[in-house]
Amino acid sequence: MSVNVLFAATQSRWSEYETPLRTAIADAGMDANIATDIAPDQVDYIVYAPNSDLQDFTPYVRAKAVLNLWAGVEAIVTNPTLHVPLARMVDPALTQGMVEWVTGHILRLHLGMDAHINASPGTWEPKAPPLAFDTRVTILGLGELGAACATALATFGFDVAGWSRSPKDVHGVTCFSGPQGLDAALQRADYCVLLLPSTAATENTLNARTLALMPKGARILNPGRGPLIDDDALLGALNADHIGHATLDTFRIEPLPTDHPFWTHPKVTVTPHVASETRAAYSAKTIAENIRRGEAGEPFIYLVDRGAGY
Amino acid sequence: MSVNVLFAATQSRWSEYETPLRTAIADAGMDANIATDIAPDQVDYIVYAPNSDLQDFTPYVRAKAVLNLWAGVEAIVTNPTLHVPLARMVDPALTQGMVEWVTGHILRLHLGMDAHINASPGTWEPKAPPLAFDTRVTILGLGELGAACATALATFGFDVAGWSRSPKDVHGVTCFSGPQGLDAALQRADYCVLLLPSTAATENTLNARTLALMPKGARILNPGRGPLIDDDALLGALNADHIGHATLDTFRIEPLPTDHPFWTHPKVTVTPHVASETRAAYSAKTIAENIRRGEAGEPFIYLVDRGAGY
Repeated sequence: MSVNVLFAATQSRWSEYETPLRTAIADAGMDANIATDIAPDQVDYIVYAPNSDLQDFTPYVRAKAVLNLWAGVEAIVTNPTLHVPLARMVDPALTQGMVEWVTGHILRLHLGMDAHINASPGTWEPKAPPLAFDTRVTILGLGELGAACATALATFGFDVAGWSRSPKDVHGVTCFSGPQGLDAALQRADYCVLLLPSTAATENTLNARTLALMPKGARILNPGRGPLIDDDALLGALNADHIGHATLDTFRIEPLPTDHPFWTHPKVTVTPHVASETRAAYSAKTIAENIRRGEAGEPFIYLVDRGAGY
Repeated sequence: MSVNVLFAATQSRWSEYETPLRTAIADAGMDANIATDIAPDQVDYIVYAPNSDLQDFTPYVRAKAVLNLWAGVEAIVTNPTLHVPLARMVDPALTQGMVEWVTGHILRLHLGMDAHINASPGTWEPKAPPLAFDTRVTILGLGELGAACATALATFGFDVAGWSRSPKDVHGVTCFSGPQGLDAALQRADYCVLLLPSTAATENTLNARTLALMPKGARILNPGRGPLIDDDALLGALNADHIGHATLDTFRIEPLPTDHPFWTHPKVTVTPHVASETRAAYSAKTIAENIRRGEAGEPFIYLVDRGAGY
């Protein structure tokens, strides 16, 4: 019997995913009906983007799982009509893309690239930048993405610490946890990378108090979620010359409104939520694997803890 | 008996090195007289920068070695008055600095950072950049620095090949060698990093013929030596839209003359020879180790092969 897979996301996502998803599911040895319109009571799996029109899961009485296309699940995890397992997107490409964005944007600032890129002809001041060995990066959040970035940056040579709510252990990384740990992690951060989930507990993790803990000139990178930062507090700390720079990929409202001061602030770089972009060819394999597991009666991978919210 | 160490480099280097060198030599358990003025026939070791006033080594009759402050030795290796062992500078900081420059400048282009940095307010085109897995980097030169960059980039996720005159083996890196190997290495280079020594044989390694072998849009990074590239051929390939970009740290004449077209070319980034900057605190340890070896009768490390020229 064929498996019915509903693709519930925007039309442009469907154009992007249709072929990779059919290929990945066939490669996993399954016969599936994959479509954007299947009678709700016939649907076995829902491949889902939180910005899709589907917001009421009630009619999907036989669905075995909702397989999220995004790493972030805050826009679905509190949906009261959702009663089946929810898996978030974890794929090697998404993780790798995040590692590349974080490393690249740190190195831009670390190497002082902009001064060279914008130098007037004849400018010749061969001042060696600091080395990664002598540069402290703190990653807030040691989930899949945070741990991968921490490991990659430590392997590259940076002096890396990480912070998570509950204690974790990441090889080569100084791990902090709990409220006191957060203060200590920020106090040593030449660079602070935000990779926490967006929950009520993590909102405004960077606020006037915590920004003040960071060393003068510290740089902030937020490829995580917009609400992790109190925008006004960040602008205040940048204007007071306490925080040196912010490279932001996620915002409370996306697209970031054209009149938002981040766009024109000389110490802010805006990237349009590209750090954790999923890439269809890779993420289709994660979805196919979870459908295979569901059909084989094996436990799903990357399940969301609905209580914790991520 | 105290060892006499002559410091033969510019005055600004002396200001930078005096304390780190005294510290490193004392830490290595030696008693040394380190100065910029020692009677030539009393000198045991010469710490040397090729741009120093000392060009005639004849009077240094008891010198046991010349310890170069630079990685590059082409300005001293052919000096006919030099008859004692010559060591080039290899220190972990120099290697790490090179890895950081190469990785950072590749990631700038790879992530398409400039478009975000210079975006008009409201620009929101979240197109995911390619992944390192799908991006081919070729390193020309697999010496200390080239091999370190190749390994770091492969560890980071890039698809890395290397080329060297004689066959080499670097873990995780596709290694080419010889003239045919050079063509093959260039044909697959989305990015080409030049880290060859500067010799008669390597001059104009990138010329009109070899540039034409590279894929359209390929990017070139030259942190190695200026003469490795035929400047006019490079400008021609950039203007013909065949080569996509060049990030250059080394030049035939340094500082790069203000009227050189590289300064204002929209597809060229000039950095002022900072990729392989030595850092006194680290390189002083390499020098101290070679003096310790000389005094203990142990073989010197990082000796230059005078015949090969590097």
